[in-house]
Amino acid sequence: MEKRGLLYEGKAKKIFSTTDEFTVWIEYKDSATAFNGEKKETIEGKGRLNNLITSLLFTSLKEKGIESHFIKQVSDYEQLVKRVEIIPLEVVVRNIAAGSLAKRIGWEEGTPLKSPIVEFYYKDDDLGDPLLTVDHIEQLELASVEELKTLKEMGLKVNTILQELFNEVGIQLVDFKLEFGKDVDGKILLADEISPDTCRLWDKETGQKLDKDVFRRDLGSLTDVYSIILTKLGGPQHV
Amino acid sequence: MEKRGLLYEGKAKKIFSTTDEFTVWIEYKDSATAFNGEKKETIEGKGRLNNLITSLLFTSLKEKGIESHFIKQVSDYEQLVKRVEIIPLEVVVRNIAAGSLAKRIGWEEGTPLKSPIVEFYYKDDDLGDPLLTVDHIEQLELASVEELKTLKEMGLKVNTILQELFNEVGIQLVDFKLEFGKDVDGKILLADEISPDTCRLWDKETGQKLDKDVFRRDLGSLTDVYSIILTKLGGPQHV
Repeated sequence: MEKRGLLYEGKAKKIFSTTDEFTVWIEYKDSATAFNGEKKETIEGKGRLNNLITSLLFTSLKEKGIESHFIKQVSDYEQLVKRVEIIPLEVVVRNIAAGSLAKRIGWEEGTPLKSPIVEFYYKDDDLGDPLLTVDHIEQLELASVEELKTLKEMGLKVNTILQELFNEVGIQLVDFKLEFGKDVDGKILLADEISPDTCRLWDKETGQKLDKDVFRRDLGSLTDVYSIILTKLGGPQHV
Repeated sequence: MEKRGLLYEGKAKKIFSTTDEFTVWIEYKDSATAFNGEKKETIEGKGRLNNLITSLLFTSLKEKGIESHFIKQVSDYEQLVKRVEIIPLEVVVRNIAAGSLAKRIGWEEGTPLKSPIVEFYYKDDDLGDPLLTVDHIEQLELASVEELKTLKEMGLKVNTILQELFNEVGIQLVDFKLEFGKDVDGKILLADEISPDTCRLWDKETGQKLDKDVFRRDLGSLTDVYSIILTKLGGPQHV
């Protein structure tokens, strides 16, 4: 398999075609962005950390029966994944009130939810990735009611697996964002990444934030805390 | 039945107790507010128009089988209603994209929806009345899933009746907000008001806005357009 031309460049990743039409080559970038791109920085080593963490998590999820686009990690910054058509929804699963949910429902950040909840946001930068209800998604024809059910079920299943995995290494999984895609056969696969960029992860003992809120809220070195996550998950030490 | 002490004063109405514990006395105010109370004005005659329009609409809805808190109009500014405990949700029914929906999903104002949609907003001024999903409402314990189903069904039924009613007099029912309450037996009743304050109403021929957007967007005299609605609905001419 060889890397070919750039297909798409996003805020955190570049996607290249390969010699196999059903496979794409992903390169993680050293850029950090927040607030819909308003805050932006280059942070050396960040792409490697997210690539390694995502590779570890997708591998663990696969072992537990979650099918994703992930094929394999090919270098510190690169991985091979199945080509999918991304469903333009951010599927957010939450265990503890934080961020926009805490603001929306007026609960103090850190308040545990009675049960995990799943939210759908419209992947649309121009609109600011707004929250959508099932009725909105039907109007926009972004996914069928049946597909939404699948996304919710897969989101909750991923949550159960990740909660256990992080809990074992002393980390609280507060919330996270998933993206899904459809392969050539129309099958829904977990896609994108799962990293401290897309999760809220708090140290169970100290409450220390070990995720992108460190960047969003200027709480210290992003790579320091992402390295803690990688190490706790059993990944290689920083080179 | 006699009017007793003030129970509650809202932005648009005062509510008084009566000699009957199951009945309250509502007085419509001449105040117009928008943008969560940031824009505010006293507009003489507005309270009368909303009282008369609401009384006409609740009477029509009752004839078509929609049970509400409405008992009777008692004066130009007053009506008697059943005492209910308000469910803290704004139930918004939409036929055409406008206002916050147009912004949220990126559709031009005036785009017809494929089918009517129902949204739930949290009645909470401090939080800015945010949009809620079913999961949020369950977390906040604002209504049960069964009750939400009832609210949605009643909202859509009210929509069908009001669409026909307004259509017959040359007005397009773009969207509207309902509130519901529970009576002493826990029965869900339509409550609050239905007026140009709580509906978007457009002249079918000219597209002229005949609702509170006239106030929100400084498009002319609010009482002039509310009077048009009252007259078209067969109400009394302005005294």
